[in-house]
Amino acid sequence: MLNMTQTDYQEIFQTIASELENIDDPGEVATYIPELACVDPSKLGVHLVTIDNNHFAHGDSDEKFSIQSIAKVLSLTLALEIVGEKLWDRVGVEPSGSAFNSLVQLEYEKGIPRNPLLNAGAIVVCDILVTRLKDPKSDLFEFIRGITGNLNIGYSQRIAESEVQTGFRNYALANLMKSFGNIENDLESVLGLYFNLCSIQMTCKEVAETFLFLATNGINPVTNEKVVAPMRARRINSIMQMCGFYDEAEEFAFSTGLPGKSGVGGGIVAVHPGKFSIAVWSPKLNEKGNSYKGMKVLEALTTKTQSSIL
Amino acid sequence: MLNMTQTDYQEIFQTIASELENIDDPGEVATYIPELACVDPSKLGVHLVTIDNNHFAHGDSDEKFSIQSIAKVLSLTLALEIVGEKLWDRVGVEPSGSAFNSLVQLEYEKGIPRNPLLNAGAIVVCDILVTRLKDPKSDLFEFIRGITGNLNIGYSQRIAESEVQTGFRNYALANLMKSFGNIENDLESVLGLYFNLCSIQMTCKEVAETFLFLATNGINPVTNEKVVAPMRARRINSIMQMCGFYDEAEEFAFSTGLPGKSGVGGGIVAVHPGKFSIAVWSPKLNEKGNSYKGMKVLEALTTKTQSSIL
Amino acid sequence: MLNMTQTDYQEIFQTIASELENIDDPGEVATYIPELACVDPSKLGVHLVTIDNNHFAHGDSDEKFSIQSIAKVLSLTLALEIVGEKLWDRVGVEPSGSAFNSLVQLEYEKGIPRNPLLNAGAIVVCDILVTRLKDPKSDLFEFIRGITGNLNIGYSQRIAESEVQTGFRNYALANLMKSFGNIENDLESVLGLYFNLCSIQMTCKEVAETFLFLATNGINPVTNEKVVAPMRARRINSIMQMCGFYDEAEEFAFSTGLPGKSGVGGGIVAVHPGKFSIAVWSPKLNEKGNSYKGMKVLEALTTKTQSSIL
Amino acid sequence: MLNMTQTDYQEIFQTIASELENIDDPGEVATYIPELACVDPSKLGVHLVTIDNNHFAHGDSDEKFSIQSIAKVLSLTLALEIVGEKLWDRVGVEPSGSAFNSLVQLEYEKGIPRNPLLNAGAIVVCDILVTRLKDPKSDLFEFIRGITGNLNIGYSQRIAESEVQTGFRNYALANLMKSFGNIENDLESVLGLYFNLCSIQMTCKEVAETFLFLATNGINPVTNEKVVAPMRARRINSIMQMCGFYDEAEEFAFSTGLPGKSGVGGGIVAVHPGKFSIAVWSPKLNEKGNSYKGMKVLEALTTKTQSSIL
Repeated sequence: MLNMTQTDYQEIFQTIASELENIDDPGEVATYIPELACVDPSKLGVHLVTIDNNHFAHGDSDEKFSIQSIAKVLSLTLALEIVGEKLWDRVGVEPSGSAFNSLVQLEYEKGIPRNPLLNAGAIVVCDILVTRLKDPKSDLFEFIRGITGNLNIGYSQRIAESEVQTGFRNYALANLMKSFGNIENDLESVLGLYFNLCSIQMTCKEVAETFLFLATNGINPVTNEKVVAPMRARRINSIMQMCGFYDEAEEFAFSTGLPGKSGVGGGIVAVHPGKFSIAVWSPKLNEKGNSYKGMKVLEALTTKTQSSIL
Repeated sequence: MLNMTQTDYQEIFQTIASELENIDDPGEVATYIPELACVDPSKLGVHLVTIDNNHFAHGDSDEKFSIQSIAKVLSLTLALEIVGEKLWDRVGVEPSGSAFNSLVQLEYEKGIPRNPLLNAGAIVVCDILVTRLKDPKSDLFEFIRGITGNLNIGYSQRIAESEVQTGFRNYALANLMKSFGNIENDLESVLGLYFNLCSIQMTCKEVAETFLFLATNGINPVTNEKVVAPMRARRINSIMQMCGFYDEAEEFAFSTGLPGKSGVGGGIVAVHPGKFSIAVWSPKLNEKGNSYKGMKVLEALTTKTQSSIL
Repeated sequence: MLNMTQTDYQEIFQTIASELENIDDPGEVATYIPELACVDPSKLGVHLVTIDNNHFAHGDSDEKFSIQSIAKVLSLTLALEIVGEKLWDRVGVEPSGSAFNSLVQLEYEKGIPRNPLLNAGAIVVCDILVTRLKDPKSDLFEFIRGITGNLNIGYSQRIAESEVQTGFRNYALANLMKSFGNIENDLESVLGLYFNLCSIQMTCKEVAETFLFLATNGINPVTNEKVVAPMRARRINSIMQMCGFYDEAEEFAFSTGLPGKSGVGGGIVAVHPGKFSIAVWSPKLNEKGNSYKGMKVLEALTTKTQSSIL
Repeated sequence: MLNMTQTDYQEIFQTIASELENIDDPGEVATYIPELACVDPSKLGVHLVTIDNNHFAHGDSDEKFSIQSIAKVLSLTLALEIVGEKLWDRVGVEPSGSAFNSLVQLEYEKGIPRNPLLNAGAIVVCDILVTRLKDPKSDLFEFIRGITGNLNIGYSQRIAESEVQTGFRNYALANLMKSFGNIENDLESVLGLYFNLCSIQMTCKEVAETFLFLATNGINPVTNEKVVAPMRARRINSIMQMCGFYDEAEEFAFSTGLPGKSGVGGGIVAVHPGKFSIAVWSPKLNEKGNSYKGMKVLEALTTKTQSSIL
């Protein structure tokens, strides 16, 4: 990776942004939740923060968006801190080769989800949090806010309600796991937490800052406080690398070379261990369900800065 | 089939019963619903009624038991009367080759159950009844009671509640179908009706009388009233023949040669078109989920009376 | 079933034939084997033979056609005679719910085919014959010819070769079963026999006569010689009823009510135990792979003669 | 990653080796090919070569072993050079979530393998080579030998023959793909090349040297000749990272953090882009089919040298 100055980055961001303006975005905004369909599809934000706390931003990077599945990494982080490697008794860590909400593998494998970033896996993680936390919702938000000390992070009540009303597939996954004994608590509590989690709203800046601990062996580099042990940060990075992009994991590894996680709200976070974390937001999704322009921005950036790790 | 007198039948039943006494029943009473586990496993009842209204009974044939999935044939009968062949837009009619509550095929086939005697298929049938009936529960019971004019047919509230509390797999099936748009009504109404249906209690005599219309081209032979059109009776018989015994359909066709339907309460009903209907009850189930002794009784009976249709 | 005279049958066949002339046949001749694609699609033959040796025929009933999968019943009959119920250690007897040549179920179930009328099941049956017969091909043909004493039954060398050259799916099935240890002999011998079997050619008259033993408890009614034990005949009938029509088993049971078996050459055989056997041939297949007009003829015939057993 | 001297490495290797001596290896030598079962299970070799051509070795690093699936990366490299990105029309690039030789996904996805490191995918790659090379076997070996100019690389005729005789599953995969039209050439040629490929024998030193071009953006650092374009090297690395370890991809990414590929002969190769390539060999496999001690060596090494890229 090259040594980069503020000017270098501004120039690179500028170049990438100009290049993207000439691209016809063939993607589609997610519509399965009515609230998501309302977002202005032309939004584009980028925010990169280095481990020595230099910030580089572009476009709508200070606007809140629905981070959706990106949040699954944060609930996983908390659950891992609480129960440690015992978590893997109830969730696998391997890529699934199936759709993110498929029930087939879950039935064949007796209610054990393939990994914690699939819907089923994230629901099991929520079940663990419901069991172990005193007040699951507020404790989870306290943890997330505490990573960077940002009290401004919250969720959209309207999106959470929208998820409840349309989340039949998630109810099916949760009931199937319950029938196998892999959900301990009542489903309303577990899915209530899950839908809140998916409805978290952040800006690109907030996402990049929140995920920076994964680039620093688990330390918040601003406060120097430990978020997780180094081994945990590495585990989460390897899970993101293998399972963070649904059926486009290899494509992302190839084009960008960084561990990361996408959400159907059009956000993507990626981490370069030892260097930086970056968040991108552009609402239109490619056919695999990942932000079309978000992927392009990250590909262009890692190419121009030679920061792929592969 | 031989011509049989009352004495002949009594003798045959006596012989079969003596033979069964010497058999060690390797089956197990169903325990997935606590209420079912309480039944006395030694119960054995048989009741056969011919189309000219001769009755032959043995053992505990006048004791109520939980007919469970046998009732799916009755809801199917009513739904077919109401919507006719359009029903097949939403449910298939072929054997599934999978477990009765599998989600795999349901996901691959986009929420269309393979046949109406699988749990998923019976849930779609209940959804249709909820849409089309004014007061689904009481209208369905009125229909069932009306087949023979027996007002004594009801369901066990305790079993129905037990089903609700343990029916996670059924909730999973219903939610999956809802996500594919194959359930129109809210799930509580649909599954409420479904669990009531599965909790119906009848005696062997009542089951045999209720199913006799399938041996008479759709006519109640006592009152001479039409229950369904002849073509419908034939359709229901062919569905029972192909799909009535989970993964033991061929075995039942081979050993007994009659269309029929089993339930996890240990009941089996079978129909010889043009001759008779018969109900057997013995709570211990073989490993395929069908009454061990019930199968033996029917096999012995059709052999001794030469009444197999194959 | 009504009592029918020669005149009655001629009249009924005539009526059915006239009705069919006005039907636009939407079916397609099978083309996966070039040789099959050459058949005149307008051919239509019917031949019914009763257990007291009365014959009723119509159309092209004396013309040879490729009986294809119908022959699987004959190899099964011979294998059952040789190894008896031990056969079921290596093949199941239940409907599959999958395509006739699917590998999915075969892999999940560790190389044990669901039933002997699927391609995989018929290949295992051929493997058993290769193990147990001195000269498998000629012994099998001797058995088939011996059922009725008809020395005129043979197979098409060109179709057999065509099957070899295009039968990659069958090679895949056989290799998969071999990898699970469910094929004992070398694949060329086993598939060689299998492809010969599928290439047998018969007329409708020959098919009806050959299958008559299944209507007579296993006896050749002309010579009074035993072909198989009564229990075997019943087993074969129940397997045909459950598994004889691919994904249209219930439909055939409903419309015709008889056990039977179809082939992609456009032939169908059906058996009414205690009454008759019947063969129909019309090359154009419906989308489920069964003869479109063949199904219609059998449906019309069983309706007009009231000979459905359901 | 730390700067390391020759002495440092020798010390680290020594420490790791001593640690491993005290470990009870629960793995099993692969036995599905008789020839593989004959290998001395106590063998352990390591060879690391840096991009500036420094070599560090330990144990049996100069002994030939059967590299098995590791060779799939080399055939893929050649095929990518010949047909470029068009390769992805016939093979996917995503992890499969299934066993390396499963037919299920292959049937559902109509003969398109999930990735080129699964058996099915490597067979398609061989088919492409058979189509495009004049003399496939010798041209492929010329390419492999040419990467480092090592004329000493060959294959074991006995293992190749052993693979042919026991490779029923691979024949099943190839026939299934042929039935879908995804194999162009006759199967004997394609599988002949495939079995030769899997029977390649190399020492740890040879493997490490051969794979070094993936750490150097596609350049042979000794001769400075281009093996592949930088973009190709990155693609191959990302495919190895996602798909190189069967059902243990995330585990390897977590513990080692490097792209790599294992073989059932007990070999593993891993690449640190910009730094080094390393080969390990220890014949006993864990239950996921990867070398038990090989994984331990690489984990210890990347930990001690801080060379994980995650």
